[in-house]
Amino acid sequence: MSNTLEILLKLEETLEARKSADPDQSYVAKLYKKGPCKIAQKVGEEAVETAMAVAMNDDVGIITESADLLFHLMVLLKSQGFTLEDVAHELARREGLSGLVEKAARPD
Amino acid sequence: MSNTLEILLKLEETLEARKSADPDQSYVAKLYKKGPCKIAQKVGEEAVETAMAVAMNDDVGIITESADLLFHLMVLLKSQGFTLEDVAHELARREGLSGLVEKAARPD
Amino acid sequence: MSNTLEILLKLEETLEARKSADPDQSYVAKLYKKGPCKIAQKVGEEAVETAMAVAMNDDVGIITESADLLFHLMVLLKSQGFTLEDVAHELARREGLSGLVEKAARPD
Amino acid sequence: MSNTLEILLKLEETLEARKSADPDQSYVAKLYKKGPCKIAQKVGEEAVETAMAVAMNDDVGIITESADLLFHLMVLLKSQGFTLEDVAHELARREGLSGLVEKAARPD
Repeated sequence: MSNTLEILLKLEETLEARKSADPDQSYVAKLYKKGPCKIAQKVGEEAVETAMAVAMNDDVGIITESADLLFHLMVLLKSQGFTLEDVAHELARREGLSGLVEKAARPD
Repeated sequence: MSNTLEILLKLEETLEARKSADPDQSYVAKLYKKGPCKIAQKVGEEAVETAMAVAMNDDVGIITESADLLFHLMVLLKSQGFTLEDVAHELARREGLSGLVEKAARPD
Repeated sequence: MSNTLEILLKLEETLEARKSADPDQSYVAKLYKKGPCKIAQKVGEEAVETAMAVAMNDDVGIITESADLLFHLMVLLKSQGFTLEDVAHELARREGLSGLVEKAARPD
Repeated sequence: MSNTLEILLKLEETLEARKSADPDQSYVAKLYKKGPCKIAQKVGEEAVETAMAVAMNDDVGIITESADLLFHLMVLLKSQGFTLEDVAHELARREGLSGLVEKAARPD
């Protein structure tokens, strides 16, 4: 899973960079311009499409729709000043993995 | 973001382990037992709740609902034999990050 | 379709009556007590389930999930002081059926 | 509520007529052409937008989004050969209003 991290990190960098991109040139910049409610609607849409792919037992669709969903969730978080890391910390807190969060907060 | 990976990796291990857990004792085991369609419905529900948190401009809610959404998406993927890595590879393919995927596939 | 009206009208009367029912005795009274956001979540859930029934090509499911969706939409409207009539008027306005709305507004 | 029926009935007639309309000229004909899964996605989307209008306490939005939701639900039903009447009968069956259904089935 090590390059999953690299991919998600690179994607977050890209999403950050798109904040100053031209909305006519970049899909993500256009989403930012439309605002958080429009992005949140997209998250809802992609979740419905993911659920429909599951209902159709469509393995390729499950992966492509899950990718759409995760992508738009990351755009949503970024548009609100959050990152996947904030979400991961919340998950760690719940799952009793808070040791990992504390470790990360420590100076190297 | 380095411990984001650790958290998500640990969470996937936990979700894997819950496959043999008692549905009466474990929420995740109960979800697996209900099957992919029920888990997919939960993904849809959590996306609606995330969207509503955005609509309410509720920052804490955005994080907690996004965590619920990512959690259930990971349960859904796991229930179908997939992982976040499969989704990350799909994102990499689209975003022109396929170099990262190839790199990962190479023997060390 | 004449008794469709009777059924929906009767259902709206029932939903109105449940406003003073015991939340421990009535599902609808319990929904009202939980408030509009919880009811709106249910509308979202039922829409996801309707979409999944379509994806599965499940005719019986399409009707039962559509019924769940319409039911919860009516509870939502009622909880906010609206009725299906308000929604029908909005549809008439868009569809160029405003003659029907005006007719209804006229004294008999 | 008497003209609610007239409006919904007229709308169903319009939706039926659009089955033979040009998809380049008619939004509904275009939806039919895209097929039931695309229409079902729209139902999901409109439900998310309805829920967000509730979350924002936006009364005008609740009516316009509920109208969008009911409209697309009616298009979905029509595309599958069903009508609001089928859904109303299902609601009547559940709500113990089956007397109304039986009455309608009787010859005049």
